[in-house]
Amino acid sequence: MNFYTFSEERLRTFTQNVFLKMGCSETDAILAADVLLRSDLRGIDSHGVARLSGYIRLWEKERINATPNIRIVHETPTTATVDGDAGLGLVVAPFAMKVAIEKARIYGSGWVAVKNSNHFGIAGYHALMAVEQDMIGISMTNASPLVAPTYANERLLGTNPMCYAFPAGKYPPVVVDMATSAAANGKLEIAQRSNSPIPEGWAQDKDGKGSTNPNELKAGGSLLPLGSDKDHGSHKGYGLSATVDILTAVLSGANYGPWVPPFVAFLEPSANPVGEGLGHFFGAMRVDGFRPTEDFKHHLDNWIERFKGAKTIDPAKSVIIPGEPEYTFEQERKVSGIPLIDVVVNDLNDLADKLQIDRL
Amino acid sequence: MNFYTFSEERLRTFTQNVFLKMGCSETDAILAADVLLRSDLRGIDSHGVARLSGYIRLWEKERINATPNIRIVHETPTTATVDGDAGLGLVVAPFAMKVAIEKARIYGSGWVAVKNSNHFGIAGYHALMAVEQDMIGISMTNASPLVAPTYANERLLGTNPMCYAFPAGKYPPVVVDMATSAAANGKLEIAQRSNSPIPEGWAQDKDGKGSTNPNELKAGGSLLPLGSDKDHGSHKGYGLSATVDILTAVLSGANYGPWVPPFVAFLEPSANPVGEGLGHFFGAMRVDGFRPTEDFKHHLDNWIERFKGAKTIDPAKSVIIPGEPEYTFEQERKVSGIPLIDVVVNDLNDLADKLQIDRL
Repeated sequence: MNFYTFSEERLRTFTQNVFLKMGCSETDAILAADVLLRSDLRGIDSHGVARLSGYIRLWEKERINATPNIRIVHETPTTATVDGDAGLGLVVAPFAMKVAIEKARIYGSGWVAVKNSNHFGIAGYHALMAVEQDMIGISMTNASPLVAPTYANERLLGTNPMCYAFPAGKYPPVVVDMATSAAANGKLEIAQRSNSPIPEGWAQDKDGKGSTNPNELKAGGSLLPLGSDKDHGSHKGYGLSATVDILTAVLSGANYGPWVPPFVAFLEPSANPVGEGLGHFFGAMRVDGFRPTEDFKHHLDNWIERFKGAKTIDPAKSVIIPGEPEYTFEQERKVSGIPLIDVVVNDLNDLADKLQIDRL
Repeated sequence: MNFYTFSEERLRTFTQNVFLKMGCSETDAILAADVLLRSDLRGIDSHGVARLSGYIRLWEKERINATPNIRIVHETPTTATVDGDAGLGLVVAPFAMKVAIEKARIYGSGWVAVKNSNHFGIAGYHALMAVEQDMIGISMTNASPLVAPTYANERLLGTNPMCYAFPAGKYPPVVVDMATSAAANGKLEIAQRSNSPIPEGWAQDKDGKGSTNPNELKAGGSLLPLGSDKDHGSHKGYGLSATVDILTAVLSGANYGPWVPPFVAFLEPSANPVGEGLGHFFGAMRVDGFRPTEDFKHHLDNWIERFKGAKTIDPAKSVIIPGEPEYTFEQERKVSGIPLIDVVVNDLNDLADKLQIDRL
């Protein structure tokens, strides 16, 4: 396994070219590329350019519409439902977040549910759009069913991430961006590559027995909710994932639970969908809707300092502030570039050949 | 250990009398009693009348104000901060939730942060106030520091619960009401009574080593976040708890992290507080701000049926819908009464003697 490092700009241009070839407008191609690049910059390699050929395969199957008519279909002063018209989630999600931010600017808060969308990249990208406006940003999506609820032997929920992001003063924003499963699928993929066992509590086999096989999902197994088992609160991880499913899809009119369309193009969506596409949910709240922004930032800085300075079990480790590792990655990779593993580089160059654009 | 069963009405009258003796207005006494009774009815015995003498001890220490001037101190059309004036959280929280609901009625959503409050009972009570109005209800509180963040050997966070409640059609509301720690403190108390070990992953000892001793908190140990350890996502439980702490306290001007005042009256609050009292956060969103209420309820019913009917590992168990066990308890206990263990009955009768009210 070798790594090749590319500058942010080179990867960005490449990614824009892919989306242009898909038929996206220039504005949309730039935006979609920005969402993917942000993921690679922040060290979340599983959600960045590595997914490009997956998006293309969905577009080839006509499950992604490159020229969507994204629009508000229902609203009140502070709530709205957006129809993504089967567009790239990478484009639909920022549209919806902008609606939430604009409502928050006028009324203090804004909340937008989205139906008929696709995979939206990292939740943190969208929540951070609000943070730049001194707002609290919230972002959630449902996803292909991979997770079995507590006691179930069926994949009924996605890894359904939720993200809460807060603007700090002298420190980077606090960004809680997490899958509601015990482990994200990307962690299993890393174990698959090195063929190493996964910890107990991440997955169960097709009979519902705990498994340490990193390939268990391919054999009919399931991921487990955060908490792993009932004794350790898996019903809470299941409850959080259910919350995301209801807010993103039952509320918007998207597909929910086992009906959510699979991300992989080789699996067909349900023949009897209960809604349209997959769903997202976004929120923005003005910090100064609650207290002066400077007071909030001062106290969040104090919170950060107290937690970073906490007594630790291992003196070599300090308490991590949510979002801090991703921020550090972003500062470093903007300078030193983004490393991609050879299989991803090869996959992207095959894609370039197919689309007749410049290779990486 | 013996149980004695009391009718809802008898316990309610007793509880109202306690709050009247504390100096609460009749309206406040009725409301505070309703919050505690709802907890006992719903089977959450740790948060009901068993806490009455704890509230009284805090009042005796002048940490609870029986006649608070609860008021909005900052607001926009859809956001507000409420100062609880050190009142009972059981009274402050419903006041704040009413503000959120009223804003939602006009603008689609309403969001209220609360400072200078005390323990508010079960999060579900407040979230369900919104559900009765066909709104989605959200409720959170921070709490006395008992939980160590990932890698920390300090108690910096409370069990900080979050609750999301959704109105269904022919089924009871879906209510996700959960501590963000691996186990709530009440579960440790049950193990203490029977002197049985707790599962690994719930607590660590004063040196940060995993422990199965149910009395570990008294010996300087800590509870662990949902996820239990880093491999199983404890950074996610920590991130959720941090989210609750920031929304309830950094946003409102309450105390956060290790500065949150302890619930037990024998521990003194910090001499250098960073805010006032403890904090809550509430939200209400009109379902019909996103889609027609009947459509939402129809699909939530469908969601419930699909999950309840899921294939299970053990055919004797079915997938549990969040809030369903509490609903079942409530229906049963309204008819058959509320069982209290003898130590609670004795404690309440001692309290009755002290306050010169009728014993149970």
